[in-house]
Amino acid sequence: MKPIGKRRWAIAEGYIPGSSTGPAPAMTSHETACILNAGDDEANIVITIFFSDRAPAGPYRFVVPPRCTRHIRFNNLDDPEPIPTDTDYASVIESDVPIVVQHTRLDSRQAELALLSTMAYGSD
Amino acid sequence: MKPIGKRRWAIAEGYIPGSSTGPAPAMTSHETACILNAGDDEANIVITIFFSDRAPAGPYRFVVPPRCTRHIRFNNLDDPEPIPTDTDYASVIESDVPIVVQHTRLDSRQAELALLSTMAYGSD
Amino acid sequence: MKPIGKRRWAIAEGYIPGSSTGPAPAMTSHETACILNAGDDEANIVITIFFSDRAPAGPYRFVVPPRCTRHIRFNNLDDPEPIPTDTDYASVIESDVPIVVQHTRLDSRQAELALLSTMAYGSD
Amino acid sequence: MKPIGKRRWAIAEGYIPGSSTGPAPAMTSHETACILNAGDDEANIVITIFFSDRAPAGPYRFVVPPRCTRHIRFNNLDDPEPIPTDTDYASVIESDVPIVVQHTRLDSRQAELALLSTMAYGSD
Repeated sequence: MKPIGKRRWAIAEGYIPGSSTGPAPAMTSHETACILNAGDDEANIVITIFFSDRAPAGPYRFVVPPRCTRHIRFNNLDDPEPIPTDTDYASVIESDVPIVVQHTRLDSRQAELALLSTMAYGSD
Repeated sequence: MKPIGKRRWAIAEGYIPGSSTGPAPAMTSHETACILNAGDDEANIVITIFFSDRAPAGPYRFVVPPRCTRHIRFNNLDDPEPIPTDTDYASVIESDVPIVVQHTRLDSRQAELALLSTMAYGSD
Repeated sequence: MKPIGKRRWAIAEGYIPGSSTGPAPAMTSHETACILNAGDDEANIVITIFFSDRAPAGPYRFVVPPRCTRHIRFNNLDDPEPIPTDTDYASVIESDVPIVVQHTRLDSRQAELALLSTMAYGSD
Repeated sequence: MKPIGKRRWAIAEGYIPGSSTGPAPAMTSHETACILNAGDDEANIVITIFFSDRAPAGPYRFVVPPRCTRHIRFNNLDDPEPIPTDTDYASVIESDVPIVVQHTRLDSRQAELALLSTMAYGSD
Protein backbone atom coordinates (compact mmCIF):
# COMPACT_ATOMS: atom_id res chain seq x y z
CA MET A 1 0.00 0.00 0.00
CA LYS A 2 1.09 3.61 -0.56
CA PRO A 3 2.73 4.82 2.69
CA ILE A 4 0.81 7.22 4.95
CA GLY A 5 2.12 9.46 7.68
CA LYS A 6 5.20 11.40 8.70
CA ARG A 7 8.78 10.52 9.72
CA ARG A 8 8.90 12.40 13.05
CA TRP A 9 6.27 12.30 15.79
CA ALA A 10 6.05 13.75 19.29
CA ILE A 11 3.97 12.82 22.35
CA ALA A 12 4.21 15.60 24.93
CA GLU A 13 2.40 13.68 27.65
CA GLY A 14 3.80 10.64 29.35
CA TYR A 15 3.17 9.13 32.76
CA ILE A 16 3.25 5.48 33.79
CA PRO A 17 1.08 4.97 36.87
CA GLY A 18 3.01 3.15 39.57
CA SER A 19 0.22 0.78 40.52
CA SER A 20 -2.50 -1.29 38.90
CA THR A 21 -5.67 -3.21 39.70
CA GLY A 22 -6.89 -6.28 37.86
CA PRO A 23 -5.38 -9.18 35.89
CA ALA A 24 -2.01 -8.61 34.15
CA PRO A 25 -1.10 -7.83 31.44
CA ALA A 26 -4.42 -6.63 29.95
CA MET A 27 -5.39 -4.54 32.97
CA THR A 28 -1.89 -3.42 34.01
CA SER A 29 -1.62 0.38 33.91
CA HIS A 30 0.27 1.14 30.73
CA GLU A 31 1.20 3.81 28.25
CA THR A 32 1.45 2.86 24.60
CA ALA A 33 2.79 4.27 21.33
CA CYS A 34 0.81 2.57 18.57
CA ILE A 35 2.76 2.66 15.31
CA LEU A 36 1.35 1.89 11.88
CA ASN A 37 3.66 1.22 8.96
CA ALA A 38 1.23 0.87 6.05
CA GLY A 39 3.92 1.03 3.37
CA ASP A 40 5.92 -1.68 1.66
CA ASP A 41 9.28 -0.97 3.34
CA GLU A 42 10.43 -1.92 6.83
CA ALA A 43 10.36 0.97 9.32
CA ASN A 44 13.40 1.46 11.54
CA ILE A 45 12.21 3.35 14.61
CA VAL A 46 14.17 5.32 17.20
CA ILE A 47 12.42 6.57 20.36
CA THR A 48 13.92 9.25 22.63
CA ILE A 49 12.45 9.97 26.07
CA PHE A 50 12.53 13.47 27.60
CA PHE A 51 12.21 14.36 31.28
CA SER A 52 11.75 17.53 33.31
CA ASP A 53 15.03 17.47 35.17
CA ARG A 54 17.59 15.26 33.45
CA ALA A 55 19.09 14.48 30.04
CA PRO A 56 17.02 12.42 27.58
CA ALA A 57 17.03 8.61 27.64
CA GLY A 58 17.55 6.48 24.56
CA PRO A 59 17.86 5.63 21.81
CA TYR A 60 15.30 2.82 22.01
CA ARG A 61 15.28 0.93 18.68
CA PHE A 62 12.46 -1.04 17.05
CA VAL A 63 11.55 -2.46 13.70
CA VAL A 64 8.00 -2.40 12.32
CA PRO A 65 7.65 -4.73 9.33
CA PRO A 66 5.97 -3.53 6.13
CA ARG A 67 2.14 -3.43 6.23
CA CYS A 68 2.14 -4.03 10.00
CA THR A 69 1.32 -2.27 13.25
CA ARG A 70 3.24 -2.47 16.50
CA HIS A 71 1.88 -1.27 19.83
CA ILE A 72 4.90 -0.42 22.00
CA ARG A 73 4.33 -0.26 25.75
CA PHE A 74 6.62 2.34 27.33
CA ASN A 75 6.45 0.20 30.50
CA ASN A 76 8.41 -2.50 28.74
CA LEU A 77 11.31 -0.38 27.49
CA ASP A 78 14.52 -1.43 29.20
CA ASP A 79 17.39 -0.98 26.74
CA PRO A 80 19.30 1.26 27.40
CA GLU A 81 17.24 1.86 30.60
CA PRO A 82 13.69 1.51 31.96
CA ILE A 83 11.38 4.54 32.27
CA PRO A 84 10.64 5.34 35.91
CA THR A 85 7.00 5.15 37.02
CA ASP A 86 5.10 8.09 38.53
CA THR A 87 7.35 10.46 36.55
CA ASP A 88 6.44 13.03 33.88
CA TYR A 89 8.05 12.34 30.53
CA ALA A 90 7.58 13.01 26.80
CA SER A 91 8.77 11.20 23.69
CA VAL A 92 9.90 11.69 20.11
CA ILE A 93 9.47 8.81 17.66
CA GLU A 94 11.58 8.93 14.48
CA SER A 95 11.38 6.61 11.47
CA ASP A 96 13.15 6.23 8.14
CA VAL A 97 9.80 5.80 6.32
CA PRO A 98 6.38 7.42 6.84
CA ILE A 99 4.47 6.04 9.83
CA VAL A 100 1.44 7.05 11.93
CA VAL A 101 1.71 7.22 15.74
CA GLN A 102 -1.12 7.27 18.29
CA HIS A 103 -0.76 7.56 22.06
CA THR A 104 -2.93 5.62 24.52
CA ARG A 105 -2.90 5.18 28.29
CA LEU A 106 -4.84 2.67 30.39
CA ASP A 107 -4.86 3.73 34.02
CA SER A 108 -5.97 1.04 36.45
CA ARG A 109 -4.69 2.54 39.68
CA GLN A 110 -8.29 2.30 40.79
CA ALA A 111 -10.53 -0.71 40.29
CA GLU A 112 -12.32 1.22 37.54
CA LEU A 113 -10.05 1.76 34.56
CA ALA A 114 -9.69 5.05 32.69
CA LEU A 115 -8.54 5.46 29.10
CA LEU A 116 -7.06 8.28 27.06
CA SER A 117 -5.87 8.41 23.47
CA THR A 118 -4.73 10.98 20.93
CA MET A 119 -2.92 11.07 17.64
CA ALA A 120 0.67 12.16 18.21
CA TYR A 121 1.98 15.33 16.55
CA GLY A 122 3.50 14.47 13.17
CA SER A 123 6.11 16.42 11.25
CA ASP A 124 8.71 15.81 8.54
CA MET B 1 -22.24 21.72 1.40
CA LYS B 2 -18.63 22.22 0.32
CA PRO B 3 -16.73 19.02 1.16
CA ILE B 4 -14.36 18.98 4.16
CA GLY B 5 -11.58 16.55 4.96
CA LYS B 6 -9.08 14.28 3.30
CA ARG B 7 -9.22 11.12 1.16
CA ARG B 8 -6.88 8.90 3.23
CA TRP B 9 -7.01 8.43 7.00
CA ALA B 10 -5.13 6.21 9.44
CA ILE B 11 -5.93 4.98 12.96
CA ALA B 12 -2.81 3.46 14.52
CA GLU B 13 -4.59 2.12 17.59
CA GLY B 14 -7.11 -0.66 17.50
CA TYR B 15 -8.21 -3.19 20.09
CA ILE B 16 -11.61 -4.76 20.56
CA PRO B 17 -12.00 -5.89 24.18
CA GLY B 18 -13.12 -9.49 24.36
CA SER B 19 -15.71 -9.00 27.05
CA SER B 20 -18.41 -6.52 28.05
CA THR B 21 -20.65 -5.57 30.94
CA GLY B 22 -24.12 -4.05 30.61
CA PRO B 23 -26.99 -4.09 28.12
CA ALA B 24 -26.15 -4.73 24.42
CA PRO B 25 -25.63 -3.07 22.02
CA ALA B 26 -25.18 0.35 23.69
CA MET B 27 -22.86 -0.91 26.41
CA THR B 28 -21.09 -3.62 24.40
CA SER B 29 -17.34 -2.92 24.24
CA HIS B 30 -16.76 -1.52 20.78
CA GLU B 31 -14.34 0.34 18.57
CA THR B 32 -15.75 2.77 16.02
CA ALA B 33 -14.62 4.72 12.96
CA CYS B 34 -16.99 7.68 12.68
CA ILE B 35 -17.05 8.96 9.11
CA LEU B 36 -18.51 12.28 7.99
CA ASN B 37 -19.21 12.92 4.32
CA ALA B 38 -20.34 16.56 4.34
CA GLY B 39 -20.16 16.96 0.56
CA ASP B 40 -22.73 16.47 -2.16
CA ASP B 41 -21.28 13.26 -3.65
CA GLU B 42 -21.54 9.71 -2.35
CA ALA B 43 -18.36 8.46 -0.61
CA ASN B 44 -17.10 5.00 -1.53
CA ILE B 45 -15.01 3.81 1.40
CA VAL B 46 -12.41 1.04 1.60
CA ILE B 47 -11.02 -0.02 4.99
CA THR B 48 -7.83 -2.11 5.37
CA ILE B 49 -6.87 -3.67 8.71
CA PHE B 50 -3.23 -4.15 9.74
CA PHE B 51 -1.89 -6.57 12.36
CA SER B 52 1.42 -7.16 14.11
CA ASP B 53 2.13 -10.61 12.75
CA ARG B 54 0.12 -11.35 9.63
CA ALA B 55 -0.88 -9.85 6.28
CA PRO B 56 -3.56 -7.13 6.23
CA ALA B 57 -7.29 -7.96 6.14
CA GLY B 58 -9.73 -6.39 3.71
CA PRO B 59 -10.87 -4.67 1.70
CA TYR B 60 -13.99 -3.82 3.71
CA ARG B 61 -16.31 -1.67 1.54
CA PHE B 62 -18.92 0.90 2.63
CA VAL B 63 -20.93 3.70 1.14
CA VAL B 64 -21.60 6.94 3.00
CA PRO B 65 -24.37 8.94 1.30
CA PRO B 66 -23.89 12.66 0.60
CA ARG B 67 -24.39 14.98 3.62
CA CYS B 68 -24.46 11.99 5.99
CA THR B 69 -22.39 10.39 8.76
CA ARG B 70 -21.83 6.71 9.33
CA HIS B 71 -20.40 5.26 12.53
CA ILE B 72 -18.79 1.93 11.61
CA ARG B 73 -18.18 -0.54 14.44
CA PHE B 74 -15.07 -2.61 13.76
CA ASN B 75 -16.73 -5.35 15.85
CA ASN B 76 -19.33 -5.77 13.13
CA LEU B 77 -16.98 -6.18 10.17
CA ASP B 78 -17.26 -9.68 8.74
CA ASP B 79 -16.72 -9.49 4.98
CA PRO B 80 -14.13 -10.70 4.01
CA GLU B 81 -13.43 -11.75 7.64
CA PRO B 82 -14.14 -10.65 11.23
CA ILE B 83 -11.49 -8.83 13.31
CA PRO B 84 -10.31 -10.97 16.22
CA THR B 85 -10.91 -9.61 19.73
CA ASP B 86 -8.12 -8.98 22.24
CA THR B 87 -5.73 -8.36 19.32
CA ASP B 88 -3.73 -5.23 18.42
CA TYR B 89 -4.63 -3.83 15.02
CA ALA B 90 -4.57 -0.58 13.03
CA SER B 91 -6.58 0.67 10.07
CA VAL B 92 -6.43 2.79 6.93
CA ILE B 93 -9.66 4.32 5.61
CA GLU B 94 -9.67 5.45 1.97
CA SER B 95 -12.39 7.38 0.14
CA ASP B 96 -12.96 8.73 -3.36
CA VAL B 97 -14.16 12.09 -1.95
CA PRO B 98 -13.04 14.14 1.08
CA ILE B 99 -14.26 12.77 4.41
CA VAL B 100 -13.45 13.26 8.11
CA VAL B 101 -12.69 10.23 10.33
CA GLN B 102 -12.74 10.06 14.13
CA HIS B 103 -11.85 7.03 16.26
CA THR B 104 -13.75 6.11 19.44
CA ARG B 105 -13.64 3.15 21.81
CA LEU B 106 -16.10 2.22 24.55
CA ASP B 107 -14.55 -0.29 26.92
CA SER B 108 -17.01 -2.03 29.23
CA ARG B 109 -14.88 -4.96 30.33
CA GLN B 110 -15.51 -3.64 33.82
CA ALA B 111 -18.88 -2.51 35.13
CA GLU B 112 -17.68 1.10 34.82
CA LEU B 113 -17.21 2.07 31.20
CA ALA B 114 -14.22 3.95 29.84
CA LEU B 115 -14.14 6.06 26.67
CA LEU B 116 -11.44 7.29 24.34
CA SER B 117 -11.62 9.30 21.13
CA THR B 118 -9.31 11.06 18.71
CA MET B 119 -9.39 12.46 15.22
CA ALA B 120 -7.68 10.03 12.86
CA TYR B 121 -4.60 11.14 10.89
CA GLY B 122 -5.68 12.59 7.55
CA SER B 123 -3.66 12.84 4.36
CA ASP B 124 -4.22 13.16 0.61
CA MET C 1 -4.27 38.93 20.09
CA LYS C 2 -3.38 37.63 16.64
CA PRO C 3 -6.10 35.14 15.62
CA ILE C 4 -5.34 31.41 15.70
CA GLY C 5 -7.16 28.56 13.99
CA LYS C 6 -9.23 27.81 10.93
CA ARG C 7 -12.66 28.86 9.59
CA ARG C 8 -14.16 25.38 9.05
CA TRP C 9 -14.10 22.50 11.53
CA ALA C 10 -15.64 19.03 11.57
CA ILE C 11 -16.47 16.60 14.39
CA ALA C 12 -17.27 13.18 12.93
CA GLU C 13 -18.41 11.66 16.20
CA GLY C 14 -21.54 12.71 18.00
CA TYR C 15 -23.81 10.91 20.41
CA ILE C 16 -25.82 12.32 23.29
CA PRO C 17 -26.45 9.58 25.87
CA GLY C 18 -30.13 9.37 26.72
CA SER C 19 -29.67 9.07 30.46
CA SER C 20 -27.53 10.48 33.24
CA THR C 21 -26.55 9.87 36.85
CA GLY C 22 -25.64 12.58 39.35
CA PRO C 23 -26.49 16.24 39.98
CA ALA C 24 -27.50 18.39 36.96
CA PRO C 25 -26.14 20.24 35.09
CA ALA C 26 -22.48 19.41 35.91
CA MET C 27 -22.97 15.64 35.82
CA THR C 28 -25.63 15.50 33.08
CA SER C 29 -24.38 13.47 30.10
CA HIS C 30 -23.41 16.02 27.50
CA GLU C 31 -21.52 16.58 24.29
CA THR C 32 -19.74 19.89 23.83
CA ALA C 33 -18.08 21.91 21.06
CA CYS C 34 -15.61 24.21 22.80
CA ILE C 35 -14.86 27.23 20.62
CA LEU C 36 -12.00 29.67 21.13
CA ASN C 37 -12.00 33.02 19.35
CA ALA C 38 -8.61 34.46 20.34
CA GLY C 39 -8.72 37.29 17.80
CA ASP C 40 -10.00 40.84 18.04
CA ASP C 41 -13.11 40.40 15.86
CA GLU C 42 -16.45 38.85 16.78
CA ALA C 43 -16.92 35.31 15.42
CA ASN C 44 -20.23 34.50 13.76
CA ILE C 45 -20.67 30.73 13.98
CA VAL C 46 -22.95 28.41 12.02
CA ILE C 47 -23.29 24.75 13.07
CA THR C 48 -24.78 22.08 10.80
CA ILE C 49 -25.68 18.61 12.14
CA PHE C 50 -25.43 15.47 9.97
CA PHE C 51 -27.22 12.16 10.53
CA SER C 52 -27.04 8.67 9.08
CA ASP C 53 -30.49 8.55 7.57
CA ARG C 54 -31.97 12.00 7.08
CA ALA C 55 -31.13 15.47 5.77
CA PRO C 56 -28.89 17.73 7.90
CA ALA C 57 -30.31 19.93 10.68
CA GLY C 58 -29.49 23.57 11.06
CA PRO C 59 -28.26 26.21 10.71
CA TYR C 60 -27.64 26.79 14.43
CA ARG C 61 -26.22 30.30 14.90
CA PHE C 62 -23.95 31.62 17.68
CA VAL C 63 -21.73 34.57 18.36
CA VAL C 64 -18.41 34.26 20.17
CA PRO C 65 -17.12 37.67 21.28
CA PRO C 66 -13.50 38.69 20.57
CA ARG C 67 -10.89 37.18 22.94
CA CYS C 68 -13.49 34.80 24.43
CA THR C 69 -14.34 31.11 24.55
CA ARG C 70 -17.77 29.54 24.37
CA HIS C 71 -18.52 25.94 25.26
CA ILE C 72 -21.65 24.95 23.34
CA ARG C 73 -23.57 21.91 24.59
CA PHE C 74 -25.21 20.07 21.70
CA ASN C 75 -27.85 18.94 24.22
CA ASN C 76 -29.06 22.51 24.48
CA LEU C 77 -29.51 23.24 20.77
CA ASP C 78 -33.18 23.77 19.97
CA ASP C 79 -33.43 26.32 17.16
CA PRO C 80 -34.36 25.22 14.51
CA GLU C 81 -34.75 21.79 16.26
CA PRO C 82 -33.29 19.73 19.12
CA ILE C 83 -30.80 16.90 18.45
CA PRO C 84 -32.29 13.52 19.33
CA THR C 85 -30.55 11.51 22.07
CA ASP C 86 -29.14 8.01 21.54
CA THR C 87 -28.58 8.87 17.87
CA ASP C 88 -25.35 8.99 15.84
CA TYR C 89 -24.59 12.41 14.41
CA ALA C 90 -21.68 14.54 13.20
CA SER C 91 -21.20 18.30 12.91
CA VAL C 92 -19.54 21.03 10.86
CA ILE C 93 -18.74 24.34 12.56
CA GLU C 94 -18.14 27.34 10.28
CA SER C 95 -16.95 30.82 11.26
CA ASP C 96 -16.21 34.10 9.51
CA VAL C 97 -12.92 34.47 11.44
CA PRO C 98 -10.30 31.90 12.57
CA ILE C 99 -11.36 29.85 15.59
CA VAL C 100 -10.24 26.65 17.33
CA VAL C 101 -12.77 23.87 18.08
CA GLN C 102 -12.41 20.98 20.53
CA HIS C 103 -14.93 18.19 21.12
CA THR C 104 -15.68 16.75 24.58
CA ARG C 105 -18.22 14.29 25.91
CA LEU C 106 -19.11 13.51 29.51
CA ASP C 107 -21.00 10.25 29.76
CA SER C 108 -22.75 9.65 33.07
CA ARG C 109 -25.13 6.89 32.04
CA GLN C 110 -23.45 4.92 34.79
CA ALA C 111 -22.67 6.23 38.25
CA GLU C 112 -19.02 6.48 37.24
CA LEU C 113 -18.50 9.15 34.61
CA ALA C 114 -16.38 8.70 31.48
CA LEU C 115 -14.77 11.49 29.48
CA LEU C 116 -13.47 11.85 25.94
CA SER C 117 -11.99 14.81 24.10
CA THR C 118 -10.25 15.58 20.82
CA MET C 119 -9.38 18.58 18.72
CA ALA C 120 -11.82 18.81 15.83
CA TYR C 121 -10.54 18.63 12.24
CA GLY C 122 -9.76 22.13 10.99
CA SER C 123 -9.65 23.35 7.40
CA ASP C 124 -9.94 26.60 5.46
CA MET D 1 17.97 17.17 18.69
CA LYS D 2 16.33 18.97 15.78
CA PRO D 3 13.35 20.93 17.15
CA ILE D 4 9.83 19.63 16.50
CA GLY D 5 6.53 21.48 16.73
CA LYS D 6 5.03 24.92 16.34
CA ARG D 7 5.34 28.26 18.14
CA ARG D 8 1.63 28.89 18.86
CA TRP D 9 -0.81 26.38 20.30
CA ALA D 10 -4.45 26.59 21.40
CA ILE D 11 -6.56 24.45 23.76
CA ALA D 12 -10.24 25.33 23.33
CA GLU D 13 -11.43 23.24 26.26
CA GLY D 14 -10.64 24.04 29.84
CA TYR D 15 -12.42 23.24 33.08
CA ILE D 16 -10.93 22.60 36.51
CA PRO D 17 -13.34 20.46 38.55
CA GLY D 18 -14.00 22.05 41.92
CA SER D 19 -13.71 18.87 43.93
CA SER D 20 -11.60 15.72 44.11
CA THR D 21 -11.55 12.26 45.63
CA GLY D 22 -8.41 10.36 46.62
CA PRO D 23 -4.88 11.17 47.77
CA ALA D 24 -3.35 14.53 46.70
CA PRO D 25 -1.61 15.48 44.51
CA ALA D 26 -1.71 12.43 42.20
CA MET D 27 -5.48 12.02 42.39
CA THR D 28 -6.42 15.71 42.70
CA SER D 29 -8.64 16.76 39.78
CA HIS D 30 -6.37 18.68 37.44
CA GLU D 31 -5.97 20.06 33.96
CA THR D 32 -2.52 20.00 32.40
CA ALA D 33 -0.67 21.48 29.42
CA CYS D 34 2.21 19.10 28.69
CA ILE D 35 4.95 20.93 26.83
CA LEU D 36 7.86 19.27 25.02
CA ASN D 37 10.89 21.31 23.99
CA ALA D 38 12.95 18.76 22.07
CA GLY D 39 15.36 21.34 20.61
CA ASP D 40 18.65 22.68 21.86
CA ASP D 41 17.44 26.18 22.86
CA GLU D 42 15.54 27.21 25.97
CA ALA D 43 11.80 27.81 25.35
CA ASN D 44 10.26 30.96 26.82
CA ILE D 45 6.55 30.28 27.16
CA VAL D 46 3.65 32.70 27.61
CA ILE D 47 0.16 31.35 28.42
CA THR D 48 -3.01 33.45 28.04
CA ILE D 49 -6.33 32.27 29.48
CA PHE D 50 -9.67 33.12 27.82
CA PHE D 51 -13.11 33.11 29.44
CA SER D 52 -16.71 33.38 28.27
CA ASP D 53 -17.59 36.63 29.96
CA ARG D 54 -14.49 38.63 30.90
CA ALA D 55 -11.16 39.83 29.52
CA PRO D 56 -8.29 37.30 29.23
CA ALA D 57 -5.98 36.52 32.15
CA GLY D 58 -2.22 36.49 31.91
CA PRO D 59 0.49 36.53 30.80
CA TYR D 60 1.66 33.44 32.71
CA ARG D 61 5.38 32.93 32.02
CA PHE D 62 7.42 29.69 32.09
CA VAL D 63 10.75 28.41 30.90
CA VAL D 64 11.21 24.91 29.48
CA PRO D 65 14.90 23.97 29.31
CA PRO D 66 16.35 22.48 26.11
CA ARG D 67 15.63 18.75 25.57
CA CYS D 68 13.10 18.75 28.44
CA THR D 69 9.38 18.42 29.05
CA ARG D 70 7.30 20.36 31.53
CA HIS D 71 3.77 19.39 32.56
CA ILE D 72 2.05 22.59 33.71
CA ARG D 73 -1.04 22.20 35.89
CA PHE D 74 -3.50 25.03 35.25
CA ASN D 75 -4.65 24.51 38.87
CA ASN D 76 -1.31 25.82 40.07
CA LEU D 77 -1.20 29.05 38.06
CA ASP D 78 -1.38 32.04 40.40
CA ASP D 79 0.69 34.85 38.89
CA PRO D 80 -0.88 37.21 37.88
CA GLU D 81 -4.06 35.42 39.18
CA PRO D 82 -5.44 31.91 39.81
CA ILE D 83 -7.92 30.31 37.39
CA PRO D 84 -11.33 29.86 39.00
CA THR D 85 -12.64 26.29 39.35
CA ASP D 86 -15.91 25.10 37.82
CA THR D 87 -15.52 27.71 35.08
CA ASP D 88 -15.18 27.28 31.30
CA TYR D 89 -11.92 28.60 29.90
CA ALA D 90 -9.54 28.16 26.95
CA SER D 91 -5.84 28.85 26.51
CA VAL D 92 -3.20 29.95 24.02
CA ILE D 93 0.40 28.85 24.58
CA GLU D 94 3.11 30.83 22.77
CA SER D 95 6.83 30.05 22.58
CA ASP D 96 9.92 31.60 21.00
CA VAL D 97 11.05 28.18 19.69
CA PRO D 98 9.11 25.19 18.33
CA ILE D 99 7.35 23.12 21.01
CA VAL D 100 4.64 20.44 21.16
CA VAL D 101 1.63 20.86 23.48
CA GLN D 102 -0.79 18.18 24.68
CA HIS D 103 -3.83 18.71 26.91
CA THR D 104 -4.85 16.27 29.64
CA ARG D 105 -7.48 16.31 32.38
CA LEU D 106 -7.86 13.98 35.35
CA ASP D 107 -11.33 14.28 36.84
CA SER D 108 -11.70 12.73 40.29
CA ARG D 109 -14.93 14.41 41.38
CA GLN D 110 -16.21 10.87 41.76
CA ALA D 111 -14.32 8.03 43.42
CA GLU D 112 -13.65 6.59 39.95
CA LEU D 113 -11.35 8.82 37.98
CA ALA D 114 -11.87 9.81 34.34
CA LEU D 115 -9.17 10.90 31.90
CA LEU D 116 -9.10 12.85 28.67
CA SER D 117 -6.23 13.93 26.45
CA THR D 118 -5.69 15.51 23.04
CA MET D 119 -2.91 17.20 21.12
CA ALA D 120 -3.48 20.95 21.18
CA TYR D 121 -3.95 22.84 17.90
CA GLY D 122 -0.58 24.03 16.60
CA SER D 123 0.11 26.94 14.27
CA ASP D 124 2.98 29.27 13.37
